[in-house]
Amino acid sequence: MILPIFFMFSFLLSSSSCNALDFCVADLKTPQGLAGYSCKKLELVTVDDFVFSGLHAGNTSNLIKAAVTPAFTAQFPGVNGLGISIARLDLAVGGVVPMHTHPDSSEIIVVIQGIIDAGFVSSANKVYFKTLKTGDIMVFPQGLLHFQINAGTTPALAYVSFSSPSPGVQILDFALFGNDLPSNIIEETTFLDDAQVKKLKGVLGGTG
Amino acid sequence: MILPIFFMFSFLLSSSSCNALDFCVADLKTPQGLAGYSCKKLELVTVDDFVFSGLHAGNTSNLIKAAVTPAFTAQFPGVNGLGISIARLDLAVGGVVPMHTHPDSSEIIVVIQGIIDAGFVSSANKVYFKTLKTGDIMVFPQGLLHFQINAGTTPALAYVSFSSPSPGVQILDFALFGNDLPSNIIEETTFLDDAQVKKLKGVLGGTG
Amino acid sequence: MILPIFFMFSFLLSSSSCNALDFCVADLKTPQGLAGYSCKKLELVTVDDFVFSGLHAGNTSNLIKAAVTPAFTAQFPGVNGLGISIARLDLAVGGVVPMHTHPDSSEIIVVIQGIIDAGFVSSANKVYFKTLKTGDIMVFPQGLLHFQINAGTTPALAYVSFSSPSPGVQILDFALFGNDLPSNIIEETTFLDDAQVKKLKGVLGGTG
Amino acid sequence: MILPIFFMFSFLLSSSSCNALDFCVADLKTPQGLAGYSCKKLELVTVDDFVFSGLHAGNTSNLIKAAVTPAFTAQFPGVNGLGISIARLDLAVGGVVPMHTHPDSSEIIVVIQGIIDAGFVSSANKVYFKTLKTGDIMVFPQGLLHFQINAGTTPALAYVSFSSPSPGVQILDFALFGNDLPSNIIEETTFLDDAQVKKLKGVLGGTG
Amino acid sequence: MILPIFFMFSFLLSSSSCNALDFCVADLKTPQGLAGYSCKKLELVTVDDFVFSGLHAGNTSNLIKAAVTPAFTAQFPGVNGLGISIARLDLAVGGVVPMHTHPDSSEIIVVIQGIIDAGFVSSANKVYFKTLKTGDIMVFPQGLLHFQINAGTTPALAYVSFSSPSPGVQILDFALFGNDLPSNIIEETTFLDDAQVKKLKGVLGGTG
Amino acid sequence: MILPIFFMFSFLLSSSSCNALDFCVADLKTPQGLAGYSCKKLELVTVDDFVFSGLHAGNTSNLIKAAVTPAFTAQFPGVNGLGISIARLDLAVGGVVPMHTHPDSSEIIVVIQGIIDAGFVSSANKVYFKTLKTGDIMVFPQGLLHFQINAGTTPALAYVSFSSPSPGVQILDFALFGNDLPSNIIEETTFLDDAQVKKLKGVLGGTG
Repeated sequence: MILPIFFMFSFLLSSSSCNALDFCVADLKTPQGLAGYSCKKLELVTVDDFVFSGLHAGNTSNLIKAAVTPAFTAQFPGVNGLGISIARLDLAVGGVVPMHTHPDSSEIIVVIQGIIDAGFVSSANKVYFKTLKTGDIMVFPQGLLHFQINAGTTPALAYVSFSSPSPGVQILDFALFGNDLPSNIIEETTFLDDAQVKKLKGVLGGTG
Repeated sequence: MILPIFFMFSFLLSSSSCNALDFCVADLKTPQGLAGYSCKKLELVTVDDFVFSGLHAGNTSNLIKAAVTPAFTAQFPGVNGLGISIARLDLAVGGVVPMHTHPDSSEIIVVIQGIIDAGFVSSANKVYFKTLKTGDIMVFPQGLLHFQINAGTTPALAYVSFSSPSPGVQILDFALFGNDLPSNIIEETTFLDDAQVKKLKGVLGGTG
Repeated sequence: MILPIFFMFSFLLSSSSCNALDFCVADLKTPQGLAGYSCKKLELVTVDDFVFSGLHAGNTSNLIKAAVTPAFTAQFPGVNGLGISIARLDLAVGGVVPMHTHPDSSEIIVVIQGIIDAGFVSSANKVYFKTLKTGDIMVFPQGLLHFQINAGTTPALAYVSFSSPSPGVQILDFALFGNDLPSNIIEETTFLDDAQVKKLKGVLGGTG
Repeated sequence: MILPIFFMFSFLLSSSSCNALDFCVADLKTPQGLAGYSCKKLELVTVDDFVFSGLHAGNTSNLIKAAVTPAFTAQFPGVNGLGISIARLDLAVGGVVPMHTHPDSSEIIVVIQGIIDAGFVSSANKVYFKTLKTGDIMVFPQGLLHFQINAGTTPALAYVSFSSPSPGVQILDFALFGNDLPSNIIEETTFLDDAQVKKLKGVLGGTG
Repeated sequence: MILPIFFMFSFLLSSSSCNALDFCVADLKTPQGLAGYSCKKLELVTVDDFVFSGLHAGNTSNLIKAAVTPAFTAQFPGVNGLGISIARLDLAVGGVVPMHTHPDSSEIIVVIQGIIDAGFVSSANKVYFKTLKTGDIMVFPQGLLHFQINAGTTPALAYVSFSSPSPGVQILDFALFGNDLPSNIIEETTFLDDAQVKKLKGVLGGTG
Repeated sequence: MILPIFFMFSFLLSSSSCNALDFCVADLKTPQGLAGYSCKKLELVTVDDFVFSGLHAGNTSNLIKAAVTPAFTAQFPGVNGLGISIARLDLAVGGVVPMHTHPDSSEIIVVIQGIIDAGFVSSANKVYFKTLKTGDIMVFPQGLLHFQINAGTTPALAYVSFSSPSPGVQILDFALFGNDLPSNIIEETTFLDDAQVKKLKGVLGGTG
């Protein structure tokens, strides 16, 4: 008399849910579509698709003394389609995450260690800027220019969560000065001086 | 003088709508993506992709005396991407659809024959519970625990519509007791007694 | 030792879920917004907001011998925001639901009694048309012209589910001939003859 | 001391954004999915995927004296997934865009040359109808019947933007009279006279 | 025998569609919500809510020799909720639309008169840049830095369509230099020189 | 010559962006709608709407030795409409977050201190279960049963991010045993023994 329950459930499950999508672990070898990647076959999915141990301390031995270590779809295929991802942010003393936007994602920062100056600018051109202490959080709305700076005398550590599994990032300096956008176009559209543009192109590897 | 209209329309149609998606009948052989399956080629689509005659009376000769017969994307590829699907519910006398959730779909039941006790529990922990007569409908919001019980002395028949073409279903007992989730974890996270957990694992085929 | 669990749960619930939206029963007295109505206060919501007993047999004593009885947000506020609604369709012998579209909703029909001819036309101008027997279902994709006709010698009964809680309906004849759209405009944009337009304007109460 | 910035940026970019989707130029050779086409590989994308020079004056030498030249996903793959597209509309003197709907898209027209009578009918059966002068714009909500007519004595030119990258179009006359929908079904569901139906079937190439 | 059709249709319409949202003309006096404004009462809506005649030539007598005249929700309430809007762009000889982003909207430009240099930068830091001739169109994906410059010797005119009824705009120079963002923060997060920052703050009215 | 730039920008901004929604800080006094709360007036918004300092260590002196401290819309109105929120999780030694679901949200946990056993069950009834070390992350897909347990000998601290600004939470035990759901209904729909049901009702304050 016990088996029939089991069979009934099996029936319910096999008939109704075999095509339902609880999740869609990215098969990174498939072509990417608008809604992300195709799903890894269910029989190949394991718990390790949903766990990620790679958010190690980043190397901040660079000029901006900062490192971002992401757990986005490319590194952590389990988030594909789930509308969320996370990254680790290390800021050495003096470290800076330069002015940037995420074209398709909002962000929340939670400060784990240290003190961080953070801010964003609205499209009404108002600055929202504050010094965050350990334990504080701040939200940066989608698509707006924002930044983070280590404001203390010790290294800072934070986690940043995103409302997209694969958030884009457009770093202002690199977008302007790190490619072949002609200098005169940059100058006409930003009002920066020619010398300033050429100096930063030099630093960031831009041409033209 | 008649042909030009025809040609003009053909032009309009061929140029503007050949890639438009009125519908996207699932090609079940393609890999599943976040937004469902790829579309069957338009020239292969027939009216039979949009009609389904398989909602026969289910076999209720099981312990719960219930059967759910679905017309989801897997059975009825025409609903792929259209945000809706349907299933037939047969409840013999004493039949029960056990406590379950649909992680991604709301549901409406319409009672065709018999009397059904139905209810759901909100995340504010309130019970919404009522006896439905023939002709009554009830809506169960997405993701909340709910159930249906034949409350009459004759078989009951109902149709249940879903706001997803491929709704998932998580049946509480099977999720807890029908797999290898360790007994001590179940007990710690549900406060159920060890004997109760082991009894239901026995019934439902669980291990560990 | 029992109380602390209770308090802990209360804390969890009061702190985390008091503003969560499991559902949003429409407060029909509020102004309608793009995403539906504002939510009835949770303390005023009862199970009767989620149950509807008004899907009675419609009166088919009219020229088209058909009646549609809806359970949309206006009649059944519990579906507000849940992406689904339902209606009852009665077709007397000879009854017809005239050619129409739902601008924002797909539809599934399930035939409970009788035989129904149903069909839709795609934007590639192909007709998908079939005779549905009792128990059959058919899906009509969003925004496309479709119709239902009692194809049998007995009354037909069906339920139609929609992928919107408040689906619009544009009935072709009424849109063309039941208002003040000038006859010459109708003729220029539909190629119908003047006599035909004026005849149907007479029947449907159109002017101009 | 300059290189480290460059490397740091490279690291940030390569690690965090390589899978982000700023855009998804349609690879028209892939199977179409619910959310559009798969994305062309980023290394193959050029500025020419985002620029289109094919909106030439259409040939209005047809009975309706109108031509629509689209820049939808099929012609302009760069709009895939971006929620927008555009078309050019040429109306010779006496030209008409017949009554039609877009099942999944709203539309804005901007009149560049000439005078255009335009209108739509709501599902509450009200007509919104106006003569548009050069420079005027009008919006047509998704899924509703609408039309445009050259109301002047010179050719008219307009651009029409859509809220979908691949809007469908259902032209009323062609849907009713340009296929094999049986005449008696048309007559029953539209109340048109048999002679009228057969006349337009003749014009538009319909059978049955 | 004519009246019954009329009554039947009236019944169908009054019962099923009175709460359906074909459109939602913004009532700009209501508080703005996440999904836009509340809807103007249907009985107050006229065709003039859907037509806008205010896209006049803008005044380009300013230093950038450019003017953008919008038809967004604030100016053209009929687009509220329809996922589309439009603006007119006038560029005098030498005119420039400076580097900017739309945080929540993609954009298509169609050039009506003149020649325009236009481009955007992707988050992979690649420049997509082209000279557009009269009749050309270009699409700018959501959230990415882009610009337009009159590249000819005559005034240029274009229309720009957006995939949002109320697109935000963040103009780079104004975001950086037109508010009270402290100079040292700007310098640390953009690597611009202090003199450059202070010069542009002076021009754009920034403080701090 | 400096002012004209300023005025031009002011014009651009005032005309085009005054109604754009970069963000929508919840005005918690307004009625809640489907898409969240109405927006606080822009002139009243300050940086403190986007920063939250209330994620203090929770009190784990309760039977489950756990505390969740949320920063959802109710506590942190700045996240309204941004598709993301966060909470702090404290687990004393032996602490447990009981089996629960979020009906409308996915979740990522990042372990800051200690060791946590975490898992979820799919609708295909498979268990995904793992011991997380400090620095590990795990994602829990929307709507599925999941749990967390302190698996170490020291207190554990974690942050949990959600893909909704106001995630609901349905705690299994409280949903079943903490309200007036009749015992016989619970028993019929869960197969639990009467004694077990009554024992847990006693603990959790349930009646009936």
